[in-house]
Amino acid sequence: MKESSRKQGAASPCAACKLLRRRCVEDCVFAPYFPAEEPHKFASVHKVFGASNVNKMLQELPEYQRGDAVSSMVYEANARVRDPVYGCVGAISSLQQQIDKLQAQLALAQAEVVHMRMRQLADFPNSPQINANKQSRHQQQKSHFDMDNLEDSFWH
Amino acid sequence: MKESSRKQGAASPCAACKLLRRRCVEDCVFAPYFPAEEPHKFASVHKVFGASNVNKMLQELPEYQRGDAVSSMVYEANARVRDPVYGCVGAISSLQQQIDKLQAQLALAQAEVVHMRMRQLADFPNSPQINANKQSRHQQQKSHFDMDNLEDSFWH
Repeated sequence: MKESSRKQGAASPCAACKLLRRRCVEDCVFAPYFPAEEPHKFASVHKVFGASNVNKMLQELPEYQRGDAVSSMVYEANARVRDPVYGCVGAISSLQQQIDKLQAQLALAQAEVVHMRMRQLADFPNSPQINANKQSRHQQQKSHFDMDNLEDSFWH
Repeated sequence: MKESSRKQGAASPCAACKLLRRRCVEDCVFAPYFPAEEPHKFASVHKVFGASNVNKMLQELPEYQRGDAVSSMVYEANARVRDPVYGCVGAISSLQQQIDKLQAQLALAQAEVVHMRMRQLADFPNSPQINANKQSRHQQQKSHFDMDNLEDSFWH
């Protein structure tokens, strides 16, 4: 797969070498991740991180992690091009706000469930459904209790 | 404020100029954001974005936005140093997963509230509380209806 893309690269340089106007060598570190047909990917990371830094970062990683590293760098660079002040951090801040809002909504909904259960129990103590629930809970507790007793008698 | 920091800068260069081993001039673009006493801030952005790119990005922004831009770049650079494969994007992905989980929990809790309300209504149609709610809703509807009648008689 890599070899075939390099053969193609021999005919036309990868997007990185084309932008940097340099010869695309056979073991070019950019070629597998920046194909000629996607020039914008390299243009963004070059603008934000610089070709030399991208090269260094890729060289420091094992080959199997380089694809993911390039994808995350392209994402980050595009975010910085779109929003030169906050970049990716703007997205992080907005997701964090969304989480705070959802946590507050969840706490409210859960409090309402507890409140409704308590009210149901207080208003209708003789409800067959509630008594059935109570009985089932009592049975569960009883079986735990029996289990405890069994363990007690086993250990003492 | 800026002037006093530049006076200080005249005695000792800012963290950026110190690392780049260059003279810290009076209008140095880095000096207000990379004080000598915080050398790690510039070291990170230099390693990830490159000094020349940081310089360019700051020059392209109005002064009042540069402080925020530096903070977000330092955050992003630190994330990339900690996690060279995913950087900031790792945090985005984990926040997104947290949001998906919270949304599912919220949907469940809200469904439980609706279910309990429906059951309460079906099980205890003569509950004084439910009847009080019903009456209040009926009154609200009635007052709307009266309003409509009033409008009707006005227009016809």
